[in-house]
Amino acid sequence: MRKAFQEELATINEELIRIAELVAAALEQAGQAFQSSDTELAQEVIAADARIDFLQHELDERSIDVLALEGPVASDLRLVVGALRMSTSLERMGDLARHVAQLVRLRFPSDVVPASIRPTFDELIEIDTRIARDLVELLSSRDLEVAKRIATANVRVNELHASVFQAIAAEGWNESASTSVDVALASRYFERFADHGVSVARKVTYLVSGDWEPQTAGL
Amino acid sequence: MRKAFQEELATINEELIRIAELVAAALEQAGQAFQSSDTELAQEVIAADARIDFLQHELDERSIDVLALEGPVASDLRLVVGALRMSTSLERMGDLARHVAQLVRLRFPSDVVPASIRPTFDELIEIDTRIARDLVELLSSRDLEVAKRIATANVRVNELHASVFQAIAAEGWNESASTSVDVALASRYFERFADHGVSVARKVTYLVSGDWEPQTAGL
Repeated sequence: MRKAFQEELATINEELIRIAELVAAALEQAGQAFQSSDTELAQEVIAADARIDFLQHELDERSIDVLALEGPVASDLRLVVGALRMSTSLERMGDLARHVAQLVRLRFPSDVVPASIRPTFDELIEIDTRIARDLVELLSSRDLEVAKRIATANVRVNELHASVFQAIAAEGWNESASTSVDVALASRYFERFADHGVSVARKVTYLVSGDWEPQTAGL
Repeated sequence: MRKAFQEELATINEELIRIAELVAAALEQAGQAFQSSDTELAQEVIAADARIDFLQHELDERSIDVLALEGPVASDLRLVVGALRMSTSLERMGDLARHVAQLVRLRFPSDVVPASIRPTFDELIEIDTRIARDLVELLSSRDLEVAKRIATANVRVNELHASVFQAIAAEGWNESASTSVDVALASRYFERFADHGVSVARKVTYLVSGDWEPQTAGL
Protein backbone atom coordinates (compact mmCIF):
# COMPACT_ATOMS: atom_id res chain seq x y z
CA MET A 1 0.00 0.00 0.00
CA ARG A 2 2.72 2.42 0.99
CA LYS A 3 4.63 1.80 -2.19
CA ALA A 4 1.57 2.29 -4.36
CA PHE A 5 0.98 5.57 -2.58
CA GLN A 6 4.50 6.83 -3.28
CA GLU A 7 3.96 5.84 -6.90
CA GLU A 8 0.72 7.82 -6.97
CA LEU A 9 2.53 10.88 -5.63
CA ALA A 10 5.23 10.46 -8.25
CA THR A 11 2.60 10.18 -10.97
CA ILE A 12 0.89 13.34 -9.75
CA ASN A 13 4.19 15.19 -9.96
CA GLU A 14 4.90 13.79 -13.42
CA GLU A 15 1.51 15.00 -14.59
CA LEU A 16 2.16 18.44 -13.15
CA ILE A 17 5.45 18.54 -15.05
CA ARG A 18 3.68 17.40 -18.22
CA ILE A 19 1.13 20.21 -17.90
CA ALA A 20 3.90 22.73 -17.20
CA GLU A 21 5.68 21.56 -20.36
CA LEU A 22 2.55 22.10 -22.43
CA VAL A 23 2.07 25.53 -20.88
CA ALA A 24 5.68 26.46 -21.70
CA ALA A 25 5.18 25.32 -25.31
CA ALA A 26 1.90 27.26 -25.52
CA LEU A 27 3.47 30.48 -24.24
CA GLU A 28 6.47 30.11 -26.53
CA GLN A 29 4.27 29.52 -29.57
CA ALA A 30 1.86 32.29 -28.60
CA GLY A 31 4.84 34.62 -28.31
CA GLN A 32 6.12 33.60 -31.74
CA ALA A 33 2.66 33.98 -33.25
CA PHE A 34 2.42 37.41 -31.63
CA GLN A 35 5.80 38.50 -32.99
CA SER A 36 5.22 37.30 -36.55
CA SER A 37 1.41 37.67 -36.74
CA ASP A 38 1.28 33.96 -37.53
CA THR A 39 -2.39 33.09 -37.41
CA GLU A 40 -1.84 29.37 -38.05
CA LEU A 41 0.49 29.07 -35.09
CA ALA A 42 -2.00 31.09 -33.04
CA GLN A 43 -4.69 28.61 -34.01
CA GLU A 44 -2.50 25.73 -32.79
CA VAL A 45 -2.11 27.39 -29.40
CA ILE A 46 -5.85 27.88 -29.15
CA ALA A 47 -6.52 24.24 -30.06
CA ALA A 48 -3.81 22.92 -27.71
CA ASP A 49 -5.34 24.67 -24.71
CA ALA A 50 -8.13 22.10 -24.59
CA ARG A 51 -5.47 19.44 -23.95
CA ILE A 52 -4.13 21.41 -20.97
CA ASP A 53 -7.63 21.78 -19.57
CA PHE A 54 -8.23 18.04 -20.00
CA LEU A 55 -4.98 17.09 -18.26
CA GLN A 56 -5.69 19.47 -15.41
CA HIS A 57 -9.09 17.90 -14.89
CA GLU A 58 -7.53 14.42 -14.96
CA LEU A 59 -4.85 15.42 -12.47
CA ASP A 60 -7.45 16.90 -10.14
CA GLU A 61 -9.51 13.71 -10.25
CA ARG A 62 -6.40 11.64 -9.53
CA SER A 63 -5.49 13.89 -6.63
CA ILE A 64 -8.95 13.60 -5.13
CA ASP A 65 -8.82 9.81 -5.54
CA VAL A 66 -5.50 9.75 -3.70
CA LEU A 67 -7.00 11.82 -0.89
CA ALA A 68 -9.96 9.44 -0.68
CA LEU A 69 -8.07 6.16 -0.94
CA GLU A 70 -4.88 6.96 0.94
CA GLY A 71 -5.91 9.66 3.40
CA PRO A 72 -2.44 11.20 3.36
CA VAL A 73 -1.32 13.40 6.26
CA ALA A 74 1.42 15.93 6.96
CA SER A 75 3.77 16.66 4.08
CA ASP A 76 2.16 14.07 1.77
CA LEU A 77 -1.20 15.75 2.22
CA ARG A 78 0.29 19.16 1.48
CA LEU A 79 1.86 17.72 -1.62
CA VAL A 80 -1.49 16.53 -2.97
CA VAL A 81 -3.32 19.74 -2.03
CA GLY A 82 -0.40 21.68 -3.48
CA ALA A 83 -0.76 19.78 -6.76
CA LEU A 84 -4.47 20.66 -6.87
CA ARG A 85 -3.61 24.32 -6.51
CA MET A 86 -0.64 24.36 -8.85
CA SER A 87 -2.68 22.70 -11.57
CA THR A 88 -5.23 25.51 -11.26
CA SER A 89 -2.49 28.11 -11.78
CA LEU A 90 -0.98 26.19 -14.68
CA GLU A 91 -4.37 25.83 -16.34
CA ARG A 92 -4.86 29.58 -16.00
CA MET A 93 -1.43 30.18 -17.57
CA GLY A 94 -2.56 28.07 -20.53
CA ASP A 95 -5.66 30.26 -20.80
CA LEU A 96 -3.48 33.37 -20.89
CA ALA A 97 -1.31 31.97 -23.68
CA ARG A 98 -4.57 31.26 -25.52
CA HIS A 99 -5.76 34.84 -24.93
CA VAL A 100 -2.56 36.13 -26.56
CA ALA A 101 -3.10 33.79 -29.51
CA GLN A 102 -6.71 34.96 -29.81
CA LEU A 103 -5.56 38.58 -30.04
CA VAL A 104 -3.17 37.57 -32.86
CA ARG A 105 -6.00 35.90 -34.75
CA LEU A 106 -8.39 38.77 -34.14
CA ARG A 107 -6.03 41.44 -35.51
CA PHE A 108 -4.54 39.43 -38.39
CA PRO A 109 -3.17 40.54 -40.88
CA SER A 110 -2.21 43.50 -38.67
CA ASP A 111 0.19 43.10 -35.77
CA VAL A 112 -1.43 43.26 -32.33
CA VAL A 113 0.91 46.02 -31.14
CA PRO A 114 2.58 48.91 -33.02
CA ALA A 115 6.30 48.76 -33.84
CA SER A 116 7.17 51.50 -31.34
CA ILE A 117 6.36 49.26 -28.36
CA ARG A 118 7.53 45.95 -29.83
CA PRO A 119 10.85 45.88 -27.89
CA THR A 120 8.92 45.89 -24.61
CA PHE A 121 6.78 42.97 -25.76
CA ASP A 122 9.82 41.11 -27.09
CA GLU A 123 11.29 41.30 -23.61
CA LEU A 124 7.99 40.32 -21.94
CA ILE A 125 7.79 37.26 -24.21
CA GLU A 126 11.41 36.35 -23.58
CA ILE A 127 11.01 36.55 -19.80
CA ASP A 128 7.65 34.74 -19.73
CA THR A 129 9.15 31.97 -21.86
CA ARG A 130 12.03 31.67 -19.40
CA ILE A 131 9.65 31.63 -16.44
CA ALA A 132 7.58 28.88 -18.06
CA ARG A 133 10.67 26.76 -18.74
CA ASP A 134 11.98 27.41 -15.25
CA LEU A 135 8.71 26.13 -13.84
CA VAL A 136 9.25 22.81 -15.60
CA GLU A 137 12.74 22.66 -14.15
CA LEU A 138 11.52 23.66 -10.68
CA LEU A 139 8.81 21.00 -10.63
CA SER A 140 11.38 18.41 -11.73
CA SER A 141 14.33 19.40 -9.55
CA ARG A 142 12.67 21.17 -6.58
CA ASP A 143 15.74 23.41 -6.67
CA LEU A 144 14.70 26.56 -4.80
CA GLU A 145 17.28 28.65 -6.63
CA VAL A 146 15.04 28.25 -9.66
CA ALA A 147 12.08 29.52 -7.63
CA LYS A 148 14.05 32.62 -6.73
CA ARG A 149 14.99 33.12 -10.37
CA ILE A 150 11.30 33.07 -11.29
CA ALA A 151 10.42 35.62 -8.60
CA THR A 152 13.25 37.89 -9.76
CA ALA A 153 12.17 37.63 -13.39
CA ASN A 154 8.65 38.60 -12.35
CA VAL A 155 9.91 41.89 -10.91
CA ARG A 156 11.15 42.84 -14.37
CA VAL A 157 7.82 41.77 -15.91
CA ASN A 158 6.00 44.11 -13.55
CA GLU A 159 8.32 46.97 -14.56
CA LEU A 160 7.71 46.29 -18.24
CA HIS A 161 3.95 46.07 -17.69
CA ALA A 162 3.98 49.43 -15.90
CA SER A 163 6.06 50.94 -18.70
CA VAL A 164 3.42 49.90 -21.23
CA PHE A 165 0.79 51.91 -19.37
CA GLN A 166 3.18 54.86 -19.13
CA ALA A 167 3.78 54.69 -22.88
CA ILE A 168 0.04 54.71 -23.60
CA ALA A 169 -0.45 57.75 -21.35
CA ALA A 170 2.55 59.63 -22.76
CA GLU A 171 2.43 62.63 -25.13
CA GLY A 172 3.86 60.95 -28.21
CA TRP A 173 1.40 58.02 -28.21
CA ASN A 174 -0.74 58.39 -31.33
CA GLU A 175 -2.37 54.97 -31.60
CA SER A 176 -6.10 54.41 -31.90
CA ALA A 177 -8.24 53.57 -28.91
CA SER A 178 -8.63 49.96 -30.10
CA THR A 179 -4.92 49.45 -30.59
CA SER A 180 -4.22 50.99 -27.18
CA VAL A 181 -6.66 48.56 -25.60
CA ASP A 182 -5.03 45.62 -27.38
CA VAL A 183 -1.62 46.74 -26.17
CA ALA A 184 -2.85 47.07 -22.58
CA LEU A 185 -4.62 43.70 -22.63
CA ALA A 186 -1.69 41.87 -24.21
CA SER A 187 0.62 43.36 -21.60
CA ARG A 188 -1.76 42.31 -18.86
CA TYR A 189 -1.88 38.73 -20.19
CA PHE A 190 1.91 38.48 -20.08
CA GLU A 191 1.98 40.05 -16.62
CA ARG A 192 -0.69 37.69 -15.26
CA PHE A 193 1.13 34.73 -16.81
CA ALA A 194 4.32 35.60 -14.89
CA ASP A 195 2.31 36.23 -11.74
CA HIS A 196 0.77 32.76 -11.84
CA GLY A 197 4.27 31.39 -12.46
CA VAL A 198 5.43 33.01 -9.22
CA SER A 199 2.41 31.60 -7.48
CA VAL A 200 3.38 28.04 -8.53
CA ALA A 201 7.00 28.70 -7.57
CA ARG A 202 5.94 29.85 -4.10
CA LYS A 203 3.87 26.70 -3.61
CA VAL A 204 6.85 24.52 -4.52
CA THR A 205 8.99 26.57 -2.15
CA TYR A 206 6.47 26.02 0.61
CA LEU A 207 6.30 22.29 -0.03
CA VAL A 208 10.08 21.94 0.00
CA SER A 209 11.01 24.30 2.83
CA GLY A 210 7.78 24.69 4.81
CA ASP A 211 8.25 28.43 4.49
CA TRP A 212 7.08 31.04 2.06
CA GLU A 213 10.51 32.15 0.86
CA PRO A 214 11.32 35.76 0.17
CA GLN A 215 9.76 36.41 -3.19
CA THR A 216 12.87 37.66 -4.95
CA ALA A 217 16.53 36.85 -5.04
CA GLY A 218 19.04 39.52 -4.11
CA LEU A 219 18.68 42.24 -1.49
CA MET B 1 -15.60 12.00 16.27
CA ARG B 2 -18.30 11.88 13.64
CA LYS B 3 -20.17 14.73 15.20
CA ALA B 4 -17.05 16.88 15.43
CA PHE B 5 -16.43 16.23 11.77
CA GLN B 6 -19.90 17.37 10.76
CA GLU B 7 -19.32 20.47 12.85
CA GLU B 8 -16.05 21.09 11.04
CA LEU B 9 -17.82 20.82 7.69
CA ALA B 10 -20.49 23.24 8.89
CA THR B 11 -17.81 25.68 10.05
CA ILE B 12 -16.07 25.48 6.68
CA ASN B 13 -19.32 26.33 4.95
CA GLU B 14 -19.99 29.18 7.35
CA GLU B 15 -16.56 30.61 6.63
CA LEU B 16 -17.17 30.34 2.88
CA ILE B 17 -20.43 32.24 3.34
CA ARG B 18 -18.64 34.85 5.45
CA ILE B 19 -16.03 35.37 2.72
CA ALA B 20 -18.77 35.56 0.07
CA GLU B 21 -20.51 38.23 2.16
CA LEU B 22 -17.33 40.29 2.34
CA VAL B 23 -16.82 39.88 -1.41
CA ALA B 24 -20.40 41.04 -2.08
CA ALA B 25 -19.86 44.08 0.14
CA ALA B 26 -16.54 44.84 -1.58
CA LEU B 27 -18.07 44.67 -5.06
CA GLU B 28 -21.04 46.77 -4.04
CA GLN B 29 -18.81 49.44 -2.49
CA ALA B 30 -16.35 49.33 -5.40
CA GLY B 31 -19.30 49.84 -7.75
CA GLN B 32 -20.55 52.80 -5.71
CA ALA B 33 -17.05 54.29 -5.55
CA PHE B 34 -16.79 53.83 -9.31
CA GLN B 35 -20.12 55.51 -9.95
CA SER B 36 -19.51 58.51 -7.70
CA SER B 37 -15.69 58.72 -7.94
CA ASP B 38 -15.62 58.30 -4.17
CA THR B 39 -11.97 57.84 -3.34
CA GLU B 40 -12.58 57.30 0.38
CA LEU B 41 -14.95 54.45 -0.30
CA ALA B 42 -12.44 53.08 -2.81
CA GLN B 43 -9.80 53.17 -0.11
CA GLU B 44 -12.06 51.16 2.21
CA VAL B 45 -12.48 48.47 -0.45
CA ILE B 46 -8.72 48.29 -0.94
CA ALA B 47 -8.11 48.01 2.80
CA ALA B 48 -10.88 45.42 3.30
CA ASP B 49 -9.37 43.09 0.71
CA ALA B 50 -6.62 42.10 3.15
CA ARG B 51 -9.35 40.72 5.42
CA ILE B 52 -10.70 38.54 2.61
CA ASP B 53 -7.21 37.25 1.87
CA PHE B 54 -6.69 36.46 5.55
CA LEU B 55 -9.98 34.60 5.88
CA GLN B 56 -9.27 32.63 2.73
CA HIS B 57 -5.91 31.56 4.11
CA GLU B 58 -7.54 30.57 7.40
CA LEU B 59 -10.25 28.59 5.64
CA ASP B 60 -7.65 26.78 3.54
CA GLU B 61 -5.65 25.83 6.62
CA ARG B 62 -8.81 24.58 8.32
CA SER B 63 -9.73 22.54 5.26
CA ILE B 64 -6.29 20.96 5.11
CA ASP B 65 -6.50 20.16 8.83
CA VAL B 66 -9.85 18.47 8.26
CA LEU B 67 -8.36 16.42 5.44
CA ALA B 68 -5.44 15.42 7.67
CA LEU B 69 -7.39 14.66 10.85
CA GLU B 70 -10.59 13.19 9.44
CA GLY B 71 -9.53 11.70 6.12
CA PRO B 72 -12.98 12.28 4.64
CA VAL B 73 -14.09 10.25 1.62
CA ALA B 74 -16.77 10.44 -1.07
CA SER B 75 -19.08 13.44 -0.87
CA ASP B 76 -17.49 14.78 2.33
CA LEU B 77 -14.10 14.82 0.64
CA ARG B 78 -15.51 16.62 -2.38
CA LEU B 79 -17.07 19.16 -0.06
CA VAL B 80 -13.73 19.99 1.54
CA VAL B 81 -11.85 20.06 -1.76
CA GLY B 82 -14.71 22.12 -3.20
CA ALA B 83 -14.33 24.62 -0.35
CA LEU B 84 -10.60 24.94 -1.10
CA ARG B 85 -11.39 25.76 -4.69
CA MET B 86 -14.33 28.04 -4.04
CA SER B 87 -12.28 30.06 -1.58
CA THR B 88 -9.68 30.61 -4.31
CA SER B 89 -12.35 31.97 -6.66
CA LEU B 90 -13.86 34.15 -3.94
CA GLU B 91 -10.44 35.54 -3.04
CA ARG B 92 -9.90 36.38 -6.69
CA MET B 93 -13.30 38.13 -6.81
CA GLY B 94 -12.15 40.24 -3.88
CA ASP B 95 -9.01 41.14 -5.83
CA LEU B 96 -11.12 42.24 -8.78
CA ALA B 97 -13.28 44.49 -6.59
CA ARG B 98 -10.00 45.94 -5.31
CA HIS B 99 -8.75 46.49 -8.87
CA VAL B 100 -11.91 48.50 -9.63
CA ALA B 101 -11.35 50.56 -6.47
CA GLN B 102 -7.72 51.14 -7.44
CA LEU B 103 -8.82 52.52 -10.82
CA VAL B 104 -11.16 54.93 -9.00
CA ARG B 105 -8.34 56.14 -6.78
CA LEU B 106 -5.91 56.40 -9.68
CA ARG B 107 -8.20 58.59 -11.80
CA PHE B 108 -9.66 60.73 -9.02
CA PRO B 109 -10.98 63.46 -9.29
CA SER B 110 -11.94 62.33 -12.82
CA ASP B 111 -14.39 59.51 -13.38
CA VAL B 112 -12.82 56.26 -14.59
CA VAL B 113 -15.12 56.04 -17.62
CA PRO B 114 -16.72 58.77 -19.78
CA ALA B 115 -20.42 59.57 -19.43
CA SER B 116 -21.29 58.08 -22.83
CA ILE B 117 -20.56 54.54 -21.63
CA ARG B 118 -21.78 54.91 -18.06
CA PRO B 119 -25.13 53.13 -18.64
CA THR B 120 -23.23 49.96 -19.66
CA PHE B 121 -21.15 50.09 -16.49
CA ASP B 122 -24.19 50.83 -14.34
CA GLU B 123 -25.71 47.62 -15.66
CA LEU B 124 -22.46 45.67 -15.19
CA ILE B 125 -22.27 46.85 -11.58
CA GLU B 126 -25.92 46.05 -10.97
CA ILE B 127 -25.57 42.52 -12.33
CA ASP B 128 -22.26 41.81 -10.59
CA THR B 129 -23.77 43.00 -7.31
CA ARG B 130 -26.70 40.63 -7.83
CA ILE B 131 -24.36 37.75 -8.69
CA ALA B 132 -22.31 38.39 -5.54
CA ARG B 133 -25.43 38.44 -3.37
CA ASP B 134 -26.79 35.36 -5.10
CA LEU B 135 -23.56 33.53 -4.28
CA VAL B 136 -24.13 34.19 -0.59
CA GLU B 137 -27.66 32.83 -0.95
CA LEU B 138 -26.48 29.83 -2.97
CA LEU B 139 -23.82 28.89 -0.41
CA SER B 140 -26.42 29.18 2.34
CA SER B 141 -29.39 27.48 0.69
CA ARG B 142 -27.74 25.19 -1.90
CA ASP B 143 -30.77 26.04 -4.04
CA LEU B 144 -29.69 25.23 -7.59
CA GLU B 145 -32.21 27.68 -9.06
CA VAL B 146 -29.92 30.39 -7.69
CA ALA B 147 -26.96 28.79 -9.49
CA LYS B 148 -28.90 28.94 -12.75
CA ARG B 149 -29.77 32.58 -12.09
CA ILE B 150 -26.07 33.36 -11.70
CA ALA B 151 -25.19 31.60 -14.96
CA THR B 152 -27.95 33.46 -16.79
CA ALA B 153 -26.83 36.80 -15.39
CA ASN B 154 -23.29 36.05 -16.58
CA VAL B 155 -24.51 35.73 -20.18
CA ARG B 156 -25.67 39.34 -19.99
CA VAL B 157 -22.36 40.41 -18.46
CA ASN B 158 -20.53 38.86 -21.41
CA GLU B 159 -22.77 40.76 -23.82
CA LEU B 160 -22.11 44.04 -22.02
CA HIS B 161 -18.37 43.36 -21.93
CA ALA B 162 -18.36 42.70 -25.69
CA SER B 163 -20.37 45.88 -26.27
CA VAL B 164 -17.71 47.91 -24.46
CA PHE B 165 -15.07 46.72 -26.91
CA GLN B 166 -17.39 47.45 -29.81
CA ALA B 167 -17.95 50.98 -28.50
CA ILE B 168 -14.21 51.59 -28.24
CA ALA B 169 -13.69 50.40 -31.83
CA ALA B 170 -16.63 52.40 -33.22
CA GLU B 171 -16.43 55.58 -35.32
CA GLY B 172 -17.85 57.99 -32.76
CA TRP B 173 -15.45 57.03 -29.94
CA ASN B 174 -13.26 60.06 -29.28
CA GLU B 175 -11.70 59.23 -25.93
CA SER B 176 -7.96 59.25 -25.25
CA ALA B 177 -5.87 56.09 -25.36
CA SER B 178 -5.55 56.08 -21.56
CA THR B 179 -9.24 56.49 -20.98
CA SER B 180 -9.96 53.74 -23.51
CA VAL B 181 -7.60 51.42 -21.68
CA ASP B 182 -9.26 52.22 -18.34
CA VAL B 183 -12.66 51.50 -19.85
CA ALA B 184 -11.49 48.17 -21.26
CA LEU B 185 -9.78 47.11 -18.03
CA ALA B 186 -12.71 48.10 -15.83
CA SER B 187 -15.03 46.14 -18.09
CA ARG B 188 -12.71 43.16 -17.93
CA TYR B 189 -12.64 43.29 -14.11
CA PHE B 190 -16.43 43.19 -13.95
CA GLU B 191 -16.53 40.40 -16.54
CA ARG B 192 -13.93 38.31 -14.69
CA PHE B 193 -15.79 38.88 -11.41
CA ALA B 194 -18.98 37.42 -12.88
CA ASP B 195 -17.02 34.58 -14.44
CA HIS B 196 -15.54 33.55 -11.09
CA GLY B 197 -19.05 33.79 -9.65
CA VAL B 198 -20.23 31.25 -12.23
CA SER B 199 -17.27 29.08 -11.40
CA VAL B 200 -18.29 28.98 -7.71
CA ALA B 201 -21.92 28.37 -8.67
CA ARG B 202 -20.88 25.41 -10.84
CA LYS B 203 -18.90 23.90 -7.99
CA VAL B 204 -21.90 24.15 -5.67
CA THR B 205 -24.05 22.58 -8.39
CA TYR B 206 -21.58 19.74 -8.71
CA LEU B 207 -21.48 19.18 -4.95
CA VAL B 208 -25.26 19.12 -4.69
CA SER B 209 -26.19 17.21 -7.83
CA GLY B 210 -23.00 15.36 -8.78
CA ASP B 211 -23.38 16.85 -12.24
CA TRP B 212 -22.12 19.97 -13.91
CA GLU B 213 -25.51 21.51 -14.64
CA PRO B 214 -26.22 23.32 -17.86
CA GLN B 215 -24.65 26.70 -17.41
CA THR B 216 -27.69 28.80 -18.09
CA ALA B 217 -31.35 28.67 -17.32
CA GLY B 218 -33.86 28.66 -20.15
CA LEU B 219 -33.38 27.34 -23.66
